[in-house]
Amino acid sequence: MVSAEQTESPYSLALTVAYDGLAFAGYARQPGQVTVQGRLEAALSVALRREVSTAVAGRTDAGVHSLGNVVSCEAYGDEPDSDALLRSLNALAGEGIVIRQIRRAHAGFSARSDAIEREYRYRIVNGVVPPLFLGRIAWGVRKPLDLEAMRAAAAHLVGELDFRSFCVTASSLGKRTFRRIDAIEIRREEHLGEQCIVVRIAGNAFLHSMVRVVVGSLVEVGSGRRDAAWLADALVACERAAAGPTAPAHGLTLWRVGYPDGVWL
Amino acid sequence: MVSAEQTESPYSLALTVAYDGLAFAGYARQPGQVTVQGRLEAALSVALRREVSTAVAGRTDAGVHSLGNVVSCEAYGDEPDSDALLRSLNALAGEGIVIRQIRRAHAGFSARSDAIEREYRYRIVNGVVPPLFLGRIAWGVRKPLDLEAMRAAAAHLVGELDFRSFCVTASSLGKRTFRRIDAIEIRREEHLGEQCIVVRIAGNAFLHSMVRVVVGSLVEVGSGRRDAAWLADALVACERAAAGPTAPAHGLTLWRVGYPDGVWL
Repeated sequence: MVSAEQTESPYSLALTVAYDGLAFAGYARQPGQVTVQGRLEAALSVALRREVSTAVAGRTDAGVHSLGNVVSCEAYGDEPDSDALLRSLNALAGEGIVIRQIRRAHAGFSARSDAIEREYRYRIVNGVVPPLFLGRIAWGVRKPLDLEAMRAAAAHLVGELDFRSFCVTASSLGKRTFRRIDAIEIRREEHLGEQCIVVRIAGNAFLHSMVRVVVGSLVEVGSGRRDAAWLADALVACERAAAGPTAPAHGLTLWRVGYPDGVWL
Repeated sequence: MVSAEQTESPYSLALTVAYDGLAFAGYARQPGQVTVQGRLEAALSVALRREVSTAVAGRTDAGVHSLGNVVSCEAYGDEPDSDALLRSLNALAGEGIVIRQIRRAHAGFSARSDAIEREYRYRIVNGVVPPLFLGRIAWGVRKPLDLEAMRAAAAHLVGELDFRSFCVTASSLGKRTFRRIDAIEIRREEHLGEQCIVVRIAGNAFLHSMVRVVVGSLVEVGSGRRDAAWLADALVACERAAAGPTAPAHGLTLWRVGYPDGVWL
């Protein structure tokens, strides 16, 4: 057993972790609940034969999926190489979690504070035919959605802006609620033979439930209940009640997290 | 209530039905089991308020999925229109089944005997990273597969040929085991962010488990355990033991069924 007291960590590990959000009570450890963090740290502790604590790029809520969330921990030179660790972690992590990649980063690297870009994708199956293979990973919306109207409204949300209206928990005035959205793309895709609408949102960081409130608001516009001007007004109102409903968690996937090139060894 | 005794059926209904094969003990009705046929006929009987019996293009095994299987039944003029029926059947069919389309066909149409083309797709997630979102719908194969070798081997199986070696239940010599495969395409695709290999097989009809034995044999070649000449020999041997193993059911999806244009009203 090697502990941080005995040896200084010479580098860090960055795990790219996919998971089925519906199988967990969210990312973050909670007593008595099955969480991604709980299962991952248990698997790491067995594989590395020491207590392991982690940092994560996105503390996703219950039901929110991940393809590319990044989890970091300290590492020591005498531990298994990345290929062997990838195999044993996937054997240990169990149903609903897949470790897709392990990279080495500099000592002191944090998957959370070193992240410079996060990309989420939200999937909607639109129409009278409900989703089947996409049922766990897409929101079924019956009323026809106008993608051009949604794109026009989304343009109001791109930039370094105060997203207080789109945050479920930012009621306290002291909390900084400016975030930078770099792009919102809305397009049709086909997966497993089923058509869906994908809302791709990239930015530096996101407030709690921000992507889901943005999507819920865009669907208000796409279905014709609201227009683009309403969304612009909702943004400047700086209060949650001004924006649309929170879209269901299971349509959302944390797709990718970006870091400066310099962090990798 | 309208019965076939009272009124002659003026046309037929053709339902395009998708289902999650892992949720059912196969397509065909079996006492005491949850089957697609059992659930569909129960839903049709409630929606049409009479006993309904159906024909189906593909009697898929337990675990085999469908995107485009076609189920037919007789219809009468005084019944709900297709849009209303689509909505009520999707509400009645329950978890794991989606009716994607309802078309009208001529009286006496049979989804089984009028079918002229069937297309199956088999998905493989290849590599050390196991499938996550594709876990219910793809076979995870760790050993790297050589797609060019698989394509060269597959070429031996295209044509009107005796597929006795690729049939699990065709042991009796009397059964006709010639079938026509029109195309086998093997390509890489990305679904839900995960890479997979898709084997697309189209033909007029298939023997029991034939697509799964073909795929199991192609994987023998792709992994380097066998070569294309072996597969050619396996075909002419006309015995099940000469071909490769049966690939798992859950990687297979009945993708599409083709009918002559003339059948639709």
